[in-house]
Amino acid sequence: MTPEKVIIYDTTLRDGAQSEGIAFSTEDKLEILKKLDSFGVSFAEGGWPGANPKDDEFFRQAGGLKLSHTALAAFGSTAKHGTPPGEDRNLISLASCSAEWCCIFGKSWDFQVEKALCIPLEDNLIMIRDSVRFLRDSGKRVMFDAEHFFDGYRSDRSYAMKALSAAAEGGAEWLVLCDTNGGTMTCDIASAVEDVVLAFDVPVGIHCHNDSDLAVANSIAAVESGASMVQGTINGIGERCGNANLCSVIANLSLKLGYDIDVRDVSMLAEVSEFVGETANAAPSPSLPYVGEKAFAHKGGIHVSAMSKDPRTYEHIPPEAVGNRRRILISDMAGKASISEKLKEFGIDADAEESRIIVGRIKEMEAEGYQFEGADASFELLVRRLRGEMEPPFRVTGFRVFIDDAQEKTTSEASVKVEDSNGIEEHTASNGDGPVNALDNALRKALSRFFPVVKDIRLTDYKVRVLDGTSATAATVRVLIRSTNGKNSWTTVGVSENVIEASLDALTDSIEYAIYKDRREVNE
Amino acid sequence: MTPEKVIIYDTTLRDGAQSEGIAFSTEDKLEILKKLDSFGVSFAEGGWPGANPKDDEFFRQAGGLKLSHTALAAFGSTAKHGTPPGEDRNLISLASCSAEWCCIFGKSWDFQVEKALCIPLEDNLIMIRDSVRFLRDSGKRVMFDAEHFFDGYRSDRSYAMKALSAAAEGGAEWLVLCDTNGGTMTCDIASAVEDVVLAFDVPVGIHCHNDSDLAVANSIAAVESGASMVQGTINGIGERCGNANLCSVIANLSLKLGYDIDVRDVSMLAEVSEFVGETANAAPSPSLPYVGEKAFAHKGGIHVSAMSKDPRTYEHIPPEAVGNRRRILISDMAGKASISEKLKEFGIDADAEESRIIVGRIKEMEAEGYQFEGADASFELLVRRLRGEMEPPFRVTGFRVFIDDAQEKTTSEASVKVEDSNGIEEHTASNGDGPVNALDNALRKALSRFFPVVKDIRLTDYKVRVLDGTSATAATVRVLIRSTNGKNSWTTVGVSENVIEASLDALTDSIEYAIYKDRREVNE
Repeated sequence: MTPEKVIIYDTTLRDGAQSEGIAFSTEDKLEILKKLDSFGVSFAEGGWPGANPKDDEFFRQAGGLKLSHTALAAFGSTAKHGTPPGEDRNLISLASCSAEWCCIFGKSWDFQVEKALCIPLEDNLIMIRDSVRFLRDSGKRVMFDAEHFFDGYRSDRSYAMKALSAAAEGGAEWLVLCDTNGGTMTCDIASAVEDVVLAFDVPVGIHCHNDSDLAVANSIAAVESGASMVQGTINGIGERCGNANLCSVIANLSLKLGYDIDVRDVSMLAEVSEFVGETANAAPSPSLPYVGEKAFAHKGGIHVSAMSKDPRTYEHIPPEAVGNRRRILISDMAGKASISEKLKEFGIDADAEESRIIVGRIKEMEAEGYQFEGADASFELLVRRLRGEMEPPFRVTGFRVFIDDAQEKTTSEASVKVEDSNGIEEHTASNGDGPVNALDNALRKALSRFFPVVKDIRLTDYKVRVLDGTSATAATVRVLIRSTNGKNSWTTVGVSENVIEASLDALTDSIEYAIYKDRREVNE
Repeated sequence: MTPEKVIIYDTTLRDGAQSEGIAFSTEDKLEILKKLDSFGVSFAEGGWPGANPKDDEFFRQAGGLKLSHTALAAFGSTAKHGTPPGEDRNLISLASCSAEWCCIFGKSWDFQVEKALCIPLEDNLIMIRDSVRFLRDSGKRVMFDAEHFFDGYRSDRSYAMKALSAAAEGGAEWLVLCDTNGGTMTCDIASAVEDVVLAFDVPVGIHCHNDSDLAVANSIAAVESGASMVQGTINGIGERCGNANLCSVIANLSLKLGYDIDVRDVSMLAEVSEFVGETANAAPSPSLPYVGEKAFAHKGGIHVSAMSKDPRTYEHIPPEAVGNRRRILISDMAGKASISEKLKEFGIDADAEESRIIVGRIKEMEAEGYQFEGADASFELLVRRLRGEMEPPFRVTGFRVFIDDAQEKTTSEASVKVEDSNGIEEHTASNGDGPVNALDNALRKALSRFFPVVKDIRLTDYKVRVLDGTSATAATVRVLIRSTNGKNSWTTVGVSENVIEASLDALTDSIEYAIYKDRREVNE
């Protein structure tokens, strides 16, 4: 019953593009198609020809690409009721597009035929058969997506099966069972797929949505019940709660269950995930299984200590198997072992006593409100200061911020006094869009005199978190700042009752880190 | 085999707090505990007594709360090898904490005992038995978390079962099977749970992680195989890829599979999800099944047209069943309808034209960065202003904030000028712990002269969110302020490029709202 090979049908470019907030350009779609081809999936569904000019343009351009593994598929629906397939605008677009394969959907749920289409049940079956046949006669290879199949199977099994028979009669080469509303439980998917696989000679695919948080489990259950194709999207993007996440499906089927998957190399998964996320300008959730940046991040002290003995103690697979990497997080839950592991990243081999001192200092600072797991640069500075490896290159000896709403627009001005390690002072001032921006401008203006490297620093993110709600505006504030010099990025943290002071704290750490790294580069 | 009732064990405050980027304050944890109690879950795990001062403080304060449904549980581990339980610091902390229940974990995987603990297999069993017994003898009720149970079961079934026997012998009232690394496939979970349920008289729980994207499916498979407790977290927060998402587990078990769940009302799910997200300052993913804001969002076209005939065509459950709501995208029809619903709460019966104007203004303000879902008071003010129902009782005609770090400690001072509706001016100033606190103090000092009710207002929460990371410190900032007068609480919102100005915006709304409500009370 177990299929030898499982075929992957990617619909990131069609069902994934239905995702709220995602709008691929034609260029984006072509780039993703090339990436999917290099990953090796058998099918990529590119869009719905005739539905909008962008999809038509995509198929026009995609037709000119030389793909080595992936067959391009076009999506569409059966003919409109009452229109012969040969005159149906939608089917004509499909028949004339550049894709080798067409995947058309039709109704298999009696309730939908009667409530949504409002046509006789028999007419729907004829529409399915004739639509598939028209495309086959036009030279296309055809898959049939049985929309709402599992709802239909529960409501009227016999009618749902007749819809599949109609598609098979028309010449469909795949019958794809869709859990369109995503509401079906795993046990019901398994039994229905098993029934269909036994009843038809045509191979069976599965198409799941995640509305019950079961899209991956349901896809796998379908494969274990005899389906030999999984439809889904990279990172699980898609309308509402998304489609089955192909990253998880592929990893589970291949690394855990031993199926033969039609991709070139499972260790490309993290790269493909990131590529789609970047191209969609929708960073994938960091907690995505297998491919997320948190998937192999370890925080608890006990875990890290055991991991240093054998990673299998707290990792279900080696991160490299999916092209991901391990990350050790620093927090007040971290023990000496995590610190030692983390220090190795900085090339520091700390002994037990030193690790103890560092852990102690981190716990004190976290009690004040600092948090280092998202602020690697501040953590490295802390360690190097404790080890006496670095003297502060400058000191902020005073600052003032002035916010004035007396005129039309609120203005912010900051003045700062800084001193380099030779005691030379610089006193300057700047305006800004807000108090923190003014302070940032003034500080960098002052320090640029001593440290030209400061001119290249740019802030890319600024986050504020108020730490306890009890005293409201007098509460402690934690600021996280992400900076870049165009080549590297780093994050620093600052804490104070005063949001301006907390920001300054994080800003000075950011600049000090840049100066430190610059000096190390020069020396190395 | 099917259990009559499924018990929910929430570990949001312990395993959820392991999530990268989440750092609950004691106040946060107490608020979430109260919310879980009103939701009605049987157990809430609050933390690890003795592990850090914050968890100790939490248990001290939680002991004073009167909970009506939820039993508080404390987490910890078996004794250290070689230390008698009565002398083990960790077990002593557990025995003396305020929780009625203790949940301790121990190893059930031979590989872990030999590789991580490096002790004889037999010693681990004795440690488990004696640790449980010590806590029972100290008057606690005890659950045993069998860490890595499914890996252990696969590696050496007999040893894994012995670990459970040792806990049962010690007096454990629940045996909880943990998929600690989250790598187990659904079929393996089902068969192992079935085996354990048949072998023991003690009830069995399940604790899954989401590293294979199967935590929800695995939890459900365990229940269908005879487990009668599910451990998980709200929104699935947790280390790495998170824990089983209780929102999805509860909805599937109760609405789809007909189990009896120990929560008061499944339709509170969306509210509980949002509350935890807000408190963690980590908005849950909009695409979360059941509770996410996209879960019942429909794009225009075929779906919406069918939905208008019958929502079941494209919704697997009615959104109200989990306290969520339908969103029709790209259609202001839905906007008008929901605004009308909302206005009824304020006793306003708006006509279509008025609703249209309000929707238009809200869309403009949301584009600027405002968000009214969490700021009912600002929303009510907006509507009443648009309807011409209220004149502003005062105006802030100017303010200045001065932050000075020239002395030892940074000082903040604010001056404000306000004018009442008769044109009478008050100009005053105040210091504060930070610039926002200073401004708040000065504003209330100035307004108390005109409006005595202002003296009773106290801020209980202050949250800052930076809206776009691209321009960093010059980005738009949204401030949410929660205020109370001892009887009622309300939330207001302010937006600006300048965090001080955004705060002032929210502060003036808060005070204006209090004055408005006070006048209404006097008139009624």
